[in-house]
Amino acid sequence: MASSTISKQDCLTNCQECQTTLATMLTGNCLQQGGAHVEQNHVKLMLDCMAACAACIDFMSRNSDFHKSYCQACAEICKACGDSCEEVGGMDDCVKCCRKCEESCTAMAS
Amino acid sequence: MASSTISKQDCLTNCQECQTTLATMLTGNCLQQGGAHVEQNHVKLMLDCMAACAACIDFMSRNSDFHKSYCQACAEICKACGDSCEEVGGMDDCVKCCRKCEESCTAMAS
Amino acid sequence: MASSTISKQDCLTNCQECQTTLATMLTGNCLQQGGAHVEQNHVKLMLDCMAACAACIDFMSRNSDFHKSYCQACAEICKACGDSCEEVGGMDDCVKCCRKCEESCTAMAS
Amino acid sequence: MASSTISKQDCLTNCQECQTTLATMLTGNCLQQGGAHVEQNHVKLMLDCMAACAACIDFMSRNSDFHKSYCQACAEICKACGDSCEEVGGMDDCVKCCRKCEESCTAMAS
Repeated sequence: MASSTISKQDCLTNCQECQTTLATMLTGNCLQQGGAHVEQNHVKLMLDCMAACAACIDFMSRNSDFHKSYCQACAEICKACGDSCEEVGGMDDCVKCCRKCEESCTAMAS
Repeated sequence: MASSTISKQDCLTNCQECQTTLATMLTGNCLQQGGAHVEQNHVKLMLDCMAACAACIDFMSRNSDFHKSYCQACAEICKACGDSCEEVGGMDDCVKCCRKCEESCTAMAS
Repeated sequence: MASSTISKQDCLTNCQECQTTLATMLTGNCLQQGGAHVEQNHVKLMLDCMAACAACIDFMSRNSDFHKSYCQACAEICKACGDSCEEVGGMDDCVKCCRKCEESCTAMAS
Repeated sequence: MASSTISKQDCLTNCQECQTTLATMLTGNCLQQGGAHVEQNHVKLMLDCMAACAACIDFMSRNSDFHKSYCQACAEICKACGDSCEEVGGMDDCVKCCRKCEESCTAMAS
């Protein structure tokens, strides 16, 4: 999907999916499995990403003139979180939604 | 739809739709139209409802043992906000998503 | 301090202190120490408590008619989180701010 | 106060004060007075600023590596919101806390 075809609604949906998928995986999977799943940097990135998506949803849905800053930050954090989930392993759903959210937030930020 | 058939995912989706629909309508429609649309109690209820949905999404997606309190509060606020939108008029999308969110939050809270 | 003498501003301040203290301890201390500090139920309670305080601050500062529900939920979560921090040990600052926040939220909810 | 002497705790405190002051003024004062106080752009900026402060508090208190992006965005929004409050008039507390928050967020972002 070319960035130019991503609508604000697509981006909202991707942020929503990313926020809830990460929240569910962090609390239901990572905290249960332990080990690399609860490594300081990984959990911090999961929390960053959940918060970045929530802020992005908030600013986009309020038609804010400042939404691009929040989409830009969200894209960067999704990249870092997706990389961390890939490294930890067994978190394919998280990797997938982070990549999708990163792509749409990058498009919205430009 | 019977309450008993409402899943947590349905409730999440309804809260997400309600949060973003209200945010878009408040900033893009109510604040532009003025009059009854910016009456103190109405705007306060719109803000309450957006925040209640966001908290509900957060607690449900984190598998929190305390999500029922937030679903219960969200149901009450959706009721009040839907009533206010109905009274102000010309806000059918808001009324509809508030009613749907109220129903699913009530189901989740029980 | 008797509950009857707790003002809304006191409660706001206690919620703010509790939110930021827990966030700092969770990411800077618990996630670094591991062990009981990253046990599923403990981290979930820390996240619940941070979110409960944030919601409480939001509803109280917006003069919401619904703030009591959020204060009540916050009081319950602070109780559970304070107990968990006490059990885990070495988290005296968290225990202290949870107890203080619980007390003021209980007062605000009544 | 020189920017170089502003601590993270100062910035947190200023963000907290700005968030709650704006929330209280928006719902208790602007929505009651009407007129320029409920003009679309002004209310949108008040909501942006409340959300920017909340995100900034969240990322700073969680020791996030990405807090600078949120401090930078918050500084820009505080500038715009402070200007709007100045223009509307009768909002000296808001102007003051926006300026203070802008200064400390600028320092944190650098």
